[in-house]
Amino acid sequence: MAPKTVRVCVVGAGPSGLSFLYYANQIKESISSNIKNPENISVDVVCYEKHATFGGLWNLSWRVGTELGGEVVHSSMYQHLWTNAPKEALEFYDHPFKEHFDVTVPSYLPRVMILDYMKARMMKHGDLNKFIKYDTKVTNVTFDEEKKTFLVQTTSADNIGTPHTEETFDYVIVATGHFWAPNFPEFPGIEKFPGRVLHAHDYKCAKEFKGMRIMVVGGSYSADDIAVQCMKFGATSAAISCRRPTGIKWDRPGFTEYPILTRVEGNTVHFEGGQHIDVDAIILCTGYRHCFPFVDPSLQMTPENVYYPKQLYKGVIYTKGGNNKMMYLGMQNQAFSFPMFDAQALWSLQYILKNITVPCKADMLKHIKTWSQREGEAKSVLDIIDLQNDYVLDLHKEAEHEFKNFFGYRNLMKKWIDDKVNKNLFTFRNQTFKSIVTGTQSTSNRTPFMENFDDSMEGIINQC
Amino acid sequence: MAPKTVRVCVVGAGPSGLSFLYYANQIKESISSNIKNPENISVDVVCYEKHATFGGLWNLSWRVGTELGGEVVHSSMYQHLWTNAPKEALEFYDHPFKEHFDVTVPSYLPRVMILDYMKARMMKHGDLNKFIKYDTKVTNVTFDEEKKTFLVQTTSADNIGTPHTEETFDYVIVATGHFWAPNFPEFPGIEKFPGRVLHAHDYKCAKEFKGMRIMVVGGSYSADDIAVQCMKFGATSAAISCRRPTGIKWDRPGFTEYPILTRVEGNTVHFEGGQHIDVDAIILCTGYRHCFPFVDPSLQMTPENVYYPKQLYKGVIYTKGGNNKMMYLGMQNQAFSFPMFDAQALWSLQYILKNITVPCKADMLKHIKTWSQREGEAKSVLDIIDLQNDYVLDLHKEAEHEFKNFFGYRNLMKKWIDDKVNKNLFTFRNQTFKSIVTGTQSTSNRTPFMENFDDSMEGIINQC
Repeated sequence: MAPKTVRVCVVGAGPSGLSFLYYANQIKESISSNIKNPENISVDVVCYEKHATFGGLWNLSWRVGTELGGEVVHSSMYQHLWTNAPKEALEFYDHPFKEHFDVTVPSYLPRVMILDYMKARMMKHGDLNKFIKYDTKVTNVTFDEEKKTFLVQTTSADNIGTPHTEETFDYVIVATGHFWAPNFPEFPGIEKFPGRVLHAHDYKCAKEFKGMRIMVVGGSYSADDIAVQCMKFGATSAAISCRRPTGIKWDRPGFTEYPILTRVEGNTVHFEGGQHIDVDAIILCTGYRHCFPFVDPSLQMTPENVYYPKQLYKGVIYTKGGNNKMMYLGMQNQAFSFPMFDAQALWSLQYILKNITVPCKADMLKHIKTWSQREGEAKSVLDIIDLQNDYVLDLHKEAEHEFKNFFGYRNLMKKWIDDKVNKNLFTFRNQTFKSIVTGTQSTSNRTPFMENFDDSMEGIINQC
Repeated sequence: MAPKTVRVCVVGAGPSGLSFLYYANQIKESISSNIKNPENISVDVVCYEKHATFGGLWNLSWRVGTELGGEVVHSSMYQHLWTNAPKEALEFYDHPFKEHFDVTVPSYLPRVMILDYMKARMMKHGDLNKFIKYDTKVTNVTFDEEKKTFLVQTTSADNIGTPHTEETFDYVIVATGHFWAPNFPEFPGIEKFPGRVLHAHDYKCAKEFKGMRIMVVGGSYSADDIAVQCMKFGATSAAISCRRPTGIKWDRPGFTEYPILTRVEGNTVHFEGGQHIDVDAIILCTGYRHCFPFVDPSLQMTPENVYYPKQLYKGVIYTKGGNNKMMYLGMQNQAFSFPMFDAQALWSLQYILKNITVPCKADMLKHIKTWSQREGEAKSVLDIIDLQNDYVLDLHKEAEHEFKNFFGYRNLMKKWIDDKVNKNLFTFRNQTFKSIVTGTQSTSNRTPFMENFDDSMEGIINQC
């Protein structure tokens, strides 16, 4: 049978987009025997990446605010970031950490090591750069209802008079992440605060806050990580202000949790209930909003910070457009990251290859509703972990992906939650985990995290 | 004669855009007898403004980096900014400062007073809000060569799935400013600097740098103003690093001028020639690049930091497109600001009303070349002041605008340069000037600028 060519546009060469390219490359180069292609479909993929390199938010830009070309700095990454979950939770089934680093490394690793690991896995069966158009930003994605194809407009990311180009695709996969457009609430008086106010998105380096009394606003991952980081690198005190109690035991000197910020008066911040303190810097760890300004509004997923988005069938296919050819990867809240993105990417490819079929819209929405209800009924984060674990297993099953051990990830995540929230926010990164992939027990960092100021790859590996 | 309707799209409701609306309103409401309308043209204007208010860069956003909706913060304004030129240099011929504030105020004023003054002038003959669509961003401007009209696409600035709208216009006037997309050069080692690195665009408040050794990179207005501000509000020292000597006498303790930065090593910054110092914060005052990503590349003015842009006939009409209906206001380097924007706006309207005709493209380019050559031959900033003064007078003449006194602005600007550069950067804001419009000599601020920490309107007016 003569191959039928299907054109796929991937927006963004971060972890999710790369996973799609990884599997598409296996088909293209006939590397995998696991992915069947009964209709002999030739998948022609173009990935547009706004930056000059791949890896997405695991890259660190030293620029703040705007990049060259007046584009918003996309990555929310900061210096000295270590994973806040064990590496075993983001290990790829086909690329064990142990093989990658040649030694057994600790469970919690600094950014550069995760970036190194992820990049190597993506390129292990062939160079994916052939798919990627760098320094290129997508300016508009529209769907032609008659031709049933997408028109994708792009231009150079430097925004200097480069002609727009247009290409036609059968599928569009949006993999731009949802941690770049800040949710940036207003608080009375904040506009006159005589110190630094910033969103976590623009937080770059803890050392900038040495000697300062900082306040983070927010009760989630960014808030606790940035508070801990700033204190580790010399801030005088850290106030954590949030709507609901975090449940974290802040049992180190200098940390205090307060209710939500109500107003700012000079250097004084007032909390619900009447308490107030003076601070030198306010860091709004108030999360992000899904934002796809480069997509026609009729195809735009709208903000939805949930584990099972109501707009996406199997967490992937955008149901509102009605064409079933617009997909979003990695747009849910995440208990799991790389392995989930990878499962979504494989599932998408299997769907494009027609190894997976989808039901009618009503049935898709019904399916989503079942998962959504389960999320609504979750009693704790442990139930959420179970839910997302089951979701990934469901993707694996439909994508005919054999990785039965994935069931083990949930226990690993539950131990992590216990370590971090129930036991100790300051020591959880000293714990070790057993790899689901290889069974290897990780080593521990010789220097406990709070005293470890060497986050270079060499520093970590040399101690192993 | 039945009126012929001409549709004009103005992008941005800052000083330049507002000036156009000001004159368009005079025609619409038959306020002015000075603007003739021989062809009885009805000018239908729509102004799209991304923000919720008018006034452009004179507004201060407390947000840094990104606004809600993931849009770049547009304004480069900072707290405690005072004009760096006397108010007499930006006085509108038809709205004297003396009338506006009811008292004679000093020549140098804080931001809020300039904003107040400018807004009042724009609204003095009628509410311009009727023309403005707020919270609306232009996403694309294209020209239809057959119909000879522009298609302007817009959407809501919050970027959440709002349908795009499309409107057709006969003219497009881009008035979005050119001080928002940073020129953001790279220096070896800057990515590992263990302190704060930012562009002047993201500089918000001098108090953030209290107790720090700061370095500004750049030799122009932002650099000297930010260095002085930071020291005024408690920075320990200010290094000024630039390619060419600024000519400024930094004769206060703590200020030192160095050659250009060559590399960064930890906290140490190295300069051309071998000197090095340690600093705590690096502020890149390295300027801006013209950036119009919302305009089709064929209609985009490309970056050109000059006093007489080679792409714009009369500094206004974009010549490359060939349609003579695309205009840019305020896109040149500025010796003059409000009065120049105002002259450009009036000239544009007179052109739309067919009171001004333009020659063929070859002659337009020839005309530009003459001015461009004069700029190239300028021996000093004084020659540049003469050039821009003559340029504005040329616009006035063509627009049949009677304001002969404008010739006096050049002397005012020359005294300003002498005060600031030749005499004293720290005291130039204590000088007084005589209004070109009313002949009134300004009062001086009772407290010298460097000791004056009250930049409220009440504070300034009460002392007068």
